[in-house]
Amino acid sequence: MDAMQTGDTELIRAINRFHVLDTIRRFEPISRAEVGERTQLSRTTVSAIITTLLDEGVIYYDEGETSGATKSMAGRGRPRVLLRMNPNAAYVVGAKLSMHQVSITVTNLRADPLACLVLPVRTWRLGAELIADLLEDGIRAAVTKAGITMAQIAGVGVGLPGFIDSVAGISHWSPILAAEPAPVPLARMLSDRLGVSAVIENDANLVTLAERWFGHGQGVDNFVVVTVEAGIGMGLFINGDLYRGHHGMGTEFGHSKIDRHGPLCRCGQHGCVEAFCADYAILREARKIVDLPPTDDEPSIEAAVCEVTRLAREGNEGLRAVFDAAGEILGLGIANLVNVIDPGKVIISGAGMRAADLLEPSVRAAVATNSLKVLAGRCEIVFHDWTDEVWARGAASLVLQGLYRLPWSRNARIEMAI
Amino acid sequence: MDAMQTGDTELIRAINRFHVLDTIRRFEPISRAEVGERTQLSRTTVSAIITTLLDEGVIYYDEGETSGATKSMAGRGRPRVLLRMNPNAAYVVGAKLSMHQVSITVTNLRADPLACLVLPVRTWRLGAELIADLLEDGIRAAVTKAGITMAQIAGVGVGLPGFIDSVAGISHWSPILAAEPAPVPLARMLSDRLGVSAVIENDANLVTLAERWFGHGQGVDNFVVVTVEAGIGMGLFINGDLYRGHHGMGTEFGHSKIDRHGPLCRCGQHGCVEAFCADYAILREARKIVDLPPTDDEPSIEAAVCEVTRLAREGNEGLRAVFDAAGEILGLGIANLVNVIDPGKVIISGAGMRAADLLEPSVRAAVATNSLKVLAGRCEIVFHDWTDEVWARGAASLVLQGLYRLPWSRNARIEMAI
Repeated sequence: MDAMQTGDTELIRAINRFHVLDTIRRFEPISRAEVGERTQLSRTTVSAIITTLLDEGVIYYDEGETSGATKSMAGRGRPRVLLRMNPNAAYVVGAKLSMHQVSITVTNLRADPLACLVLPVRTWRLGAELIADLLEDGIRAAVTKAGITMAQIAGVGVGLPGFIDSVAGISHWSPILAAEPAPVPLARMLSDRLGVSAVIENDANLVTLAERWFGHGQGVDNFVVVTVEAGIGMGLFINGDLYRGHHGMGTEFGHSKIDRHGPLCRCGQHGCVEAFCADYAILREARKIVDLPPTDDEPSIEAAVCEVTRLAREGNEGLRAVFDAAGEILGLGIANLVNVIDPGKVIISGAGMRAADLLEPSVRAAVATNSLKVLAGRCEIVFHDWTDEVWARGAASLVLQGLYRLPWSRNARIEMAI
Repeated sequence: MDAMQTGDTELIRAINRFHVLDTIRRFEPISRAEVGERTQLSRTTVSAIITTLLDEGVIYYDEGETSGATKSMAGRGRPRVLLRMNPNAAYVVGAKLSMHQVSITVTNLRADPLACLVLPVRTWRLGAELIADLLEDGIRAAVTKAGITMAQIAGVGVGLPGFIDSVAGISHWSPILAAEPAPVPLARMLSDRLGVSAVIENDANLVTLAERWFGHGQGVDNFVVVTVEAGIGMGLFINGDLYRGHHGMGTEFGHSKIDRHGPLCRCGQHGCVEAFCADYAILREARKIVDLPPTDDEPSIEAAVCEVTRLAREGNEGLRAVFDAAGEILGLGIANLVNVIDPGKVIISGAGMRAADLLEPSVRAAVATNSLKVLAGRCEIVFHDWTDEVWARGAASLVLQGLYRLPWSRNARIEMAI
């Protein structure tokens, strides 16, 4: 264990490379000097990394452009040239498995989507082998649709719900693979089929990575992401790294108990946050107020929640109270996280944010009431209602964070860097 | 923020130095080769660090001793000599402030106590200036008692309850300094008085550091410490480092709410873990069963809790049920931590562990019942009933962790390394 913390030169080089490349991605066009200032790396280190990245074709000098700062100096010498990322130096695939759908997105190095494919499939009926086949076919089709070839794909990232050991590439338990008698080595099954490195990850962690790369987690080293939808998920960044738990199983906020006498949760226990705030809990309470059609699968649950959201928004006071109550419990649970973790930000995301306007007031009030005075107000609470695309971008980030660290060669040892 | 993560050469050197010295401390007598194996550092790096440490007199070659491994090789060449730490290369002072007592301990480099001083003082009546004076006098007396001089003291570490910004050396709020109208720069006040670097830290974090250095946290990179006594505290190690929260205020487990309809807590809110399990909560319930004298200060509360513990242990069923109920809630709260953080270990410590035998069965049962199946059983729960000395050793570790990292020179910039 201790050995993991020692300052290994290779690792340092990889981390420095990551920071230089990430800085160019975020602030391009950017001068060499600015890269040095923002990363606080020495001039020599920055120069060496930039030379390598230029050689690899990952970045290039945009000689036609000058920054504001450069313009004002134009009279004093030759104009400084600026660095840009070459977003098409490599491509990756991100995929998201949910109970009733598979989404696949091909992106470039900046995680810009080039092609998307959405397959409406009841994935939980298939089993591991058929899931891997489905992903293989879908990924090959999406890559073709993007106008590139599998040989240009540097890696594949797949997100799915459940207890996923990302480092080992194994799904220990997922509702999608619930019928499998043993843990499923899904990453290896995919890389064997595709001939490309594959990484798998818990879906809430994907959203967390997406927030870190493209969203509200940029520049914040300690933050929590709470995802509200069919279940309540959580992702955690600590000291600038995704924290997956000691056994890679961590951050199950949805089953935190906040009321011993609360309603029965899907997990068989009472008073979990999820049993108050997830889609099924909203519907359980809404049925006491309005008639709703039977809901026996995820699409019909989602349709019913959308309908309930619409009615509440149009003024149904009873349903507004349902969202208020759910928001209050969510806020209480988040206050517990604020007290225990003292994060810089809590980002609330996921499909449940379709009702962000209905939940926000009671969530904010409950966080303020239930977190310690000294912490209340220091932690920013952000409601982030973004589309399904975020999952795919997160899955792409999963691969990209490996690629950004490693010297550029396709099919590099991506697993090692993640 | 990002800049903090870049691989800075100085920092790496400091971390490597820490690992070499910590390995020698933990496994002495140890050969140079074993240090290399355990730290996984290169032969060159290990050699350079060991040469420096030998020059500084922090370690020495114990030429009279051979390890087991070495003995078997004796026939094949000259016997390898083993490294030992020189525990008297420097001394530090650890102090703990509580409401009714100040404990001061002088230790050597291995945190072995050389002299202790316990002052029974109602600290909360004094205010910041008098507290600093009291610490100054006490520390000078303890140092004399240890047979050394202030010039031999490399640093002072002080623990106290409350919201302590250790990096800035400021107490934002402490029950001991509650009458102060503004935050108290206690670290600077002490170092000005003593002419030695001083560091302050939240007291639960001190126990956590002590567990890391001398207790059950050795070799575990992610663990939680829960302290049960007047209040419920918490410390958190993540990825091998003490995590203090984004604003340095973090890990307030005692005010996690686990029952919205629960009893009133000292913080003014309802259903906090503390309101069920802290000393005052045990007494609140015990008074419903047995007559107890009035308890208006910490010593009388502690005496009453000791009496209740004795009666329960002698077979009072009603009081046993009080501990059972408190343990159940503590276990439920810990299950929430296990779910959210997925630690490798949870260490339950503090004065409340005087009743560890009464609490343990219901704590373990509630953790098992309320944590997710996939996590239950993976996380080790340890009850650690150790003496007040642990606080002082923790306070000493606070200074030592800086000294271990920095090149050896007394009064070095300790604050920077912590």
